[in-house]
Amino acid sequence: MEPTNQQPFELTPFELTKEYLEKIQTAINQQENELIIAEMDELYPADITNILYELEGEEAHYLVRLLDKKLGAEIITNLDADDRKKFLKNFTAMEIAEYVDVLDSDDAVDILNEQPKDISEDIIGLLKDREQARFVNDLMHYDEDSAGGLMQKELIKINIKQSITECIEEIRRQAEDVENVSSVYVVDDESILLGRVSLKKIILAKRGARVADIYDENIVSVKTTAKGEEVADVMQKYDLEAVPVVNIQGRLLGRITIDDVVDFITESAQEDVQAMTGISEDVEEDDSVWRLVRSRLPWLIVGMFGSFLAAKLIASLGNIIQITATVSAFIPLIGSTGGNVGIQSSSLIVQSLADKSGIDIPLSERLWKVLKVALLNAVLAGVVAFFGSLAVDGADVDLSLTVSLSLFSVVLLASFMGTLTPLALNRFNINPAIASGPFITTTNDLLGYGVYLLIVYLLM
Amino acid sequence: MEPTNQQPFELTPFELTKEYLEKIQTAINQQENELIIAEMDELYPADITNILYELEGEEAHYLVRLLDKKLGAEIITNLDADDRKKFLKNFTAMEIAEYVDVLDSDDAVDILNEQPKDISEDIIGLLKDREQARFVNDLMHYDEDSAGGLMQKELIKINIKQSITECIEEIRRQAEDVENVSSVYVVDDESILLGRVSLKKIILAKRGARVADIYDENIVSVKTTAKGEEVADVMQKYDLEAVPVVNIQGRLLGRITIDDVVDFITESAQEDVQAMTGISEDVEEDDSVWRLVRSRLPWLIVGMFGSFLAAKLIASLGNIIQITATVSAFIPLIGSTGGNVGIQSSSLIVQSLADKSGIDIPLSERLWKVLKVALLNAVLAGVVAFFGSLAVDGADVDLSLTVSLSLFSVVLLASFMGTLTPLALNRFNINPAIASGPFITTTNDLLGYGVYLLIVYLLM
Repeated sequence: MEPTNQQPFELTPFELTKEYLEKIQTAINQQENELIIAEMDELYPADITNILYELEGEEAHYLVRLLDKKLGAEIITNLDADDRKKFLKNFTAMEIAEYVDVLDSDDAVDILNEQPKDISEDIIGLLKDREQARFVNDLMHYDEDSAGGLMQKELIKINIKQSITECIEEIRRQAEDVENVSSVYVVDDESILLGRVSLKKIILAKRGARVADIYDENIVSVKTTAKGEEVADVMQKYDLEAVPVVNIQGRLLGRITIDDVVDFITESAQEDVQAMTGISEDVEEDDSVWRLVRSRLPWLIVGMFGSFLAAKLIASLGNIIQITATVSAFIPLIGSTGGNVGIQSSSLIVQSLADKSGIDIPLSERLWKVLKVALLNAVLAGVVAFFGSLAVDGADVDLSLTVSLSLFSVVLLASFMGTLTPLALNRFNINPAIASGPFITTTNDLLGYGVYLLIVYLLM
Repeated sequence: MEPTNQQPFELTPFELTKEYLEKIQTAINQQENELIIAEMDELYPADITNILYELEGEEAHYLVRLLDKKLGAEIITNLDADDRKKFLKNFTAMEIAEYVDVLDSDDAVDILNEQPKDISEDIIGLLKDREQARFVNDLMHYDEDSAGGLMQKELIKINIKQSITECIEEIRRQAEDVENVSSVYVVDDESILLGRVSLKKIILAKRGARVADIYDENIVSVKTTAKGEEVADVMQKYDLEAVPVVNIQGRLLGRITIDDVVDFITESAQEDVQAMTGISEDVEEDDSVWRLVRSRLPWLIVGMFGSFLAAKLIASLGNIIQITATVSAFIPLIGSTGGNVGIQSSSLIVQSLADKSGIDIPLSERLWKVLKVALLNAVLAGVVAFFGSLAVDGADVDLSLTVSLSLFSVVLLASFMGTLTPLALNRFNINPAIASGPFITTTNDLLGYGVYLLIVYLLM
């Protein structure tokens, strides 16, 4: 790897180039094992994971099997769930079991949950580490997106009656299994969580000190049943690096570390964006063509049906009103402004719903504010629409007034629809982000055309 | 505070109720200082911050001034930047200096940067802790969104020549200033970063061990000039709790902790969503009416101007083609399907651009895949459109064919526009997320209407 820290914006980490990749592929195909091992030795596990994404299944299998089990396990953990599932199809149950044996229990369970039930049972049966098998069996009962599903069993706990010297002994005993420790959890005889002691305090403690004298009782914990979002909110709010997970009696069962939660936060942000843009499955640009099409069609077709309703409405109103080219010229203005206002309104509400601090805003107060913002926007949009319309060939003052008045109504209506739809979805426990997508645009379109043609009918 | 851990989904943390808030407000207005202090003593700083959001400026000032300086400083740090700026208007420079004195240097700089220049200079002059004044003066030179602007000066470093016993002495010396330590950084005589030692290793080290024997050379660092997004990517990729920041020579200058980066990640996700939904300022539901209106108008008006262009196009084509009510009835279908496809395409690309792992997909490969997905979507949408159109009053087979063919073209065009626009914006260093907003909808609308009416003209 060439040293690349010449440019001011460069980070120390490794950047994957096409040349480097080809070199590794050649080495794999010619089975130059020593070269491969030496090269991988220079890299961080996360960088090796990025190389795997670019290799063929068999090449990737060959590469990982060459490496130390612990390193291989970490590389596999770093893969995205979908890719990992495909990747592990090249591995036997025995091979997978070797990695599951050395993983943190939360990562082990993730991998097992991705396998078909019979294979995951085979793998558990093949585990050499019986404690790990027990951990994994415990964790597999929890819902994947709950605190129980996110937690790992590996943690260091100490009885409140013990001394700091015993505590250090305990750390030594568990040191190999438990990585990233910054605190030791304090429990009573029934394993009920009482507090924590930071490693810093342990280092600075006097020789004879007892855990009871120096531990910190102020500890935030979450229940196994807490939702992933709640765990993320709590860790973010209280700036926690790790949060202990307890059962309903308060017994310490595991812990969740911040790195898992950061991944959770980015994933949910991505899911929300996909929901808002009318993509119905969790896809990425490099998924298969068919999967990409399938993820996009449902909302496209819902949107099209909305538009057919609009078409039916306009065509049948055409029997009553004379819809000239000039009248129809403003249909896009009505539709797209309504859509834009609706999306703006709903995205503000979705964001506000996601932020759970503080007191819930009462509905009446919320709507009163929406009314004020909507009125101002509607007046300004109406004025712009009046003068804008005058500039269109064939539009007289009457039609411009009609357009302006319609737009005023559409902005008001769309603001309320955009506010109420996500609130309603949220009430029924549906992700309110989907309301910002084609759904709200379509509804607003229909409303808008109705209002416009009604006003055309009444005024002209 | 009532104990509320009866329900299974409840977290241990405090939930703010209207009753509790009224109790605190009454206590403030009647200056029942002991009651207030006793109540706040039960809460975490983050919970007190949430109470501040609900109080009037003077009430909040009164409450915070009652509390211990260190606690007050933490509460103030938890506030959102905008709210903090408003909140601190009730404080004198001397009062603010008392909090800045006890804050971590990165948080101190954030507060100072929010103040007018003359006030922030006054505050620095009033600091009692001269080391803090020096830290803050150092940090204020960096761009707020760079690693230099995100880092704090507080960290524990140790010379590679020292022993573990000396290292523990160093931790003891700096323990009060530096919170959340999980590693000690190892440097040479020139303060060049060489590696790190985890506190776990220090606890488990033999008495006589030397730093040089046990430290870990594999350490990821970032340069002061690295962008916030890059820091977030690196910490996420390598699962880091803290990352050291070095200058171009590799000298250790500070560190960035994961909690600051988590905030950064959520903020950028929010900004992207706002950009995508056509909101041009960073606003929240509880901002002022005027601010909310102002953040929404620019893109609304851009969208309206696009629609006026569409109106001009349709009205002037009306002189050549006969635009009947039935023909105009399908204008919404063309516009909204084009808009939806464009947004779906662009959001996939925006997401793919944000994910920087792996090799960049070459443009030709990207477009080839877009073409395949677009063709499939276009054929399916075209078929649905043909049969859907037949169901609209007055639409014959000819018109349905026209609609179907137009929709086919619009889906193809919108897919390419939706892909190329964010790529182009990204090339010019503009946030590609804005391309998913009204901008792309408007462009696609215009293209779509043109194609539709052209085909109407050619076929009918």
